[in-house]
Amino acid sequence: MSLTIKLHVATTPHLWFRSQEIGRAKLKNVRPRGVYLANPLSRLPRKPKMLGHSAAKASIRSSLIDPDGGVLVDLVVQEKDRVLKAKEAEAFPRVRLTRIDLEWVHVISEGWASPLKGFMREEQYLQTLHFNCLRMGDGSVVNMSLPIVLAIDDGTKDAIRSSQNVGLVGPDGDLLAVLRSIEIYKHNKEERIARTWGTTAPGLPYVEEAITPAGNWLIGGDLEVLKPIKYNDGLDHYRLSPKQLRKEFDQRQADAVFAFQLRNPVHNGHALLMNDTRRRLLEMGFKNPILLLHPLGGYTKADDVPLNVRMEQHSKVLEDGVLDPETTVVSIFPSPMHYAGPTEVQWHAKARINAGANFYIVGRDPAGMGHPTEKRDLYDPDHGKKVLSMAPGLEKLNILPFKVAAYNMVEKKMAFFDPSRAKDFLFISGTKMRTYARNGENPPDGFMCPGGWEVLVKYYKSLQAEETKQQATVLSS
Amino acid sequence: MSLTIKLHVATTPHLWFRSQEIGRAKLKNVRPRGVYLANPLSRLPRKPKMLGHSAAKASIRSSLIDPDGGVLVDLVVQEKDRVLKAKEAEAFPRVRLTRIDLEWVHVISEGWASPLKGFMREEQYLQTLHFNCLRMGDGSVVNMSLPIVLAIDDGTKDAIRSSQNVGLVGPDGDLLAVLRSIEIYKHNKEERIARTWGTTAPGLPYVEEAITPAGNWLIGGDLEVLKPIKYNDGLDHYRLSPKQLRKEFDQRQADAVFAFQLRNPVHNGHALLMNDTRRRLLEMGFKNPILLLHPLGGYTKADDVPLNVRMEQHSKVLEDGVLDPETTVVSIFPSPMHYAGPTEVQWHAKARINAGANFYIVGRDPAGMGHPTEKRDLYDPDHGKKVLSMAPGLEKLNILPFKVAAYNMVEKKMAFFDPSRAKDFLFISGTKMRTYARNGENPPDGFMCPGGWEVLVKYYKSLQAEETKQQATVLSS
Repeated sequence: MSLTIKLHVATTPHLWFRSQEIGRAKLKNVRPRGVYLANPLSRLPRKPKMLGHSAAKASIRSSLIDPDGGVLVDLVVQEKDRVLKAKEAEAFPRVRLTRIDLEWVHVISEGWASPLKGFMREEQYLQTLHFNCLRMGDGSVVNMSLPIVLAIDDGTKDAIRSSQNVGLVGPDGDLLAVLRSIEIYKHNKEERIARTWGTTAPGLPYVEEAITPAGNWLIGGDLEVLKPIKYNDGLDHYRLSPKQLRKEFDQRQADAVFAFQLRNPVHNGHALLMNDTRRRLLEMGFKNPILLLHPLGGYTKADDVPLNVRMEQHSKVLEDGVLDPETTVVSIFPSPMHYAGPTEVQWHAKARINAGANFYIVGRDPAGMGHPTEKRDLYDPDHGKKVLSMAPGLEKLNILPFKVAAYNMVEKKMAFFDPSRAKDFLFISGTKMRTYARNGENPPDGFMCPGGWEVLVKYYKSLQAEETKQQATVLSS
Repeated sequence: MSLTIKLHVATTPHLWFRSQEIGRAKLKNVRPRGVYLANPLSRLPRKPKMLGHSAAKASIRSSLIDPDGGVLVDLVVQEKDRVLKAKEAEAFPRVRLTRIDLEWVHVISEGWASPLKGFMREEQYLQTLHFNCLRMGDGSVVNMSLPIVLAIDDGTKDAIRSSQNVGLVGPDGDLLAVLRSIEIYKHNKEERIARTWGTTAPGLPYVEEAITPAGNWLIGGDLEVLKPIKYNDGLDHYRLSPKQLRKEFDQRQADAVFAFQLRNPVHNGHALLMNDTRRRLLEMGFKNPILLLHPLGGYTKADDVPLNVRMEQHSKVLEDGVLDPETTVVSIFPSPMHYAGPTEVQWHAKARINAGANFYIVGRDPAGMGHPTEKRDLYDPDHGKKVLSMAPGLEKLNILPFKVAAYNMVEKKMAFFDPSRAKDFLFISGTKMRTYARNGENPPDGFMCPGGWEVLVKYYKSLQAEETKQQATVLSS
């Protein structure tokens, strides 16, 4: 079986995993509980209902999964209060945001990190670093694996003096947000990096981009964003907030939402997996499972395919009918990328709970990359899904691990890899895919829909043209 | 006030700490809840009872705190089964233990790490690295911050082949224990070190001693120890197991047990703190608080004072009446030392729950040390107690943070440091204390009881004599 599903049901404790209590042999029977083999609905929190058209309007509030902490955080100041709040903030000391800081402001303000209401104070930061979760006032726990922090330098700290509030200024100089009841504490970069990435090797993209150049202090506090964050890059209409996504799922009468996080072009192996997941959810008794195809839209490393190209490619995949637009919502996840493997995949999953997803698809080596200084993967490729499955605060999310898809040379299509017929399969890595596109070669038929492939070829050609031009400029100067 | 007490009561959720739910100003009021000011007993799980002599025997099972997981783990094979078990184990492939491995066998076998029943399998190891806790079958969580793992090299792994069980052989070649239903998985040292210490800087003592030279595989499984671990160093009578300690506390009719972890000689500042804690527990309504003076007895770094010297020094402290033998139990905690600050202090506290302690004293920079390559403390000195106070699975333990004691030059005694009279105080660090002893100088009167001080002077003199002898040998050879 290419896909195993393990149900976490919010109202019952983890039954499938019991560290010391049961022997390994027993665990083997319990762990990858094939819910297809049992009656899965008996373990589901609710029975999906068929709604007639008239009923639909009456019950616009669907049974989507609850956001972490129970209430979706929304920190965008109401329109009527904006002028006043902005005027008040004029008097506050200012903190200049980098592009990545701005992405985090965006993320926090829309509630992706619910129940977090601002940049972390030290007590939240320490819980994240040590426990990957935050304890709530009622003793319950929410997942929070990445430190969502704002760094400032000595000069900015000095300028803040004893002020309780600061204004946050975008990279363009606009006053965008306010941080209230601030707390300033030390930014121990080495410890943050070691505990987040499990390495301090030089060459981690997010570290080099956002941590090494950052200040030696962190500033936490309660965030208020003066107006919704926009990027004016022609893609803002794709940036649906968790609130907008929940509304969309409600309107589509989704009775299950399965999220697929990606930062790469969609090939037919991905599509196979997503379509197969939908089929299986239907088999389980859901009437209308909706796919959230959710490319990450914040900072990515230089050799990843840029967001605008990916969005164009994803459009083609839907246009070409590889994914069904009726049952798919394509939207941008505004978070920057850490490439922090098992630590980061928890964040990716947790944020999708807040957007209404109750199923999360996790593959091999999620949020992983090569070790920056050694010839190996930075993370054990299986650790991501293992850690995700055990993560505190994610018990209510259904984790869907999947086996890898590869190109079946006999059937001439992408298929789930079958180790017993290994020689029939061709693995086409991201690097290999990029090499094809760069050299103007075509990948084997059936690897990706032609429309999607064209987008990539066009992008790599433009990249080459740009490189050639730059080389010429360098040579002539 | 020099000592603040924060109550964690097992049956109610953390009231004092509510991450996002309440503002900072409120938190300030809530956090260091001075229970002396309220009626502490109303928040205690039980009312201490006065027991007459006849009643004492009838209720030998006291109301000591439950061990983690509910049952104290005891992995020492019963005497009647030893011959058979040893015979069976003769046929198993063998794993040779280092001295530190042996200390861990000791720790696990006596239930200090309850509910852990052997060296960690990967699922436990990953939970420890990422979450500092393990989830139990019933959904509850126990603290487990240090990886308790056994490393093997390629040759040993190859020799084990597909065997399900292995024999564990002590440094002297004796078959000591068995590991059953084993699981072998990769030992990613870099990740283990980074996530445990928050640094990968060279020079971490435990890393250099026990991890760098270790094999590239970890072997987990269920432990059975063929007979109680003994060191035959004249100190075994001090090595009470959690079971023995619980029995001792019961026999003394303790209604509160407060643990003091240390790896240094006891000076009068420590004693002040311990006596003050007892006084305050009496004020709270406890009738018979017992101090567990619990020096760490496993591996320590080379410049720490050796265990035998410390035990002699501790004896003098009790002989000299600085601590009251009637209300003090001195015992050795057999764990090796990681020097992993906020991560390790959780282990130190958790293990004492298993020994029956429901109050844990935590100071500045617990389990900390200087950064091995930079001129600063490796950990923020306040992080230890903060992390300990928020640690999952330790809610039932009452954490007792304390302010630092220093030598009051006016009153000529150790006293809690008063920042408003800072110039009256002299801080005598461990380094300074060692310098005094090494140079045959006396510290100020009242720093340490004379009997205890003599022990240290004698040790450092013998150390110097030894060094001189070695230098002479080197020069003459």
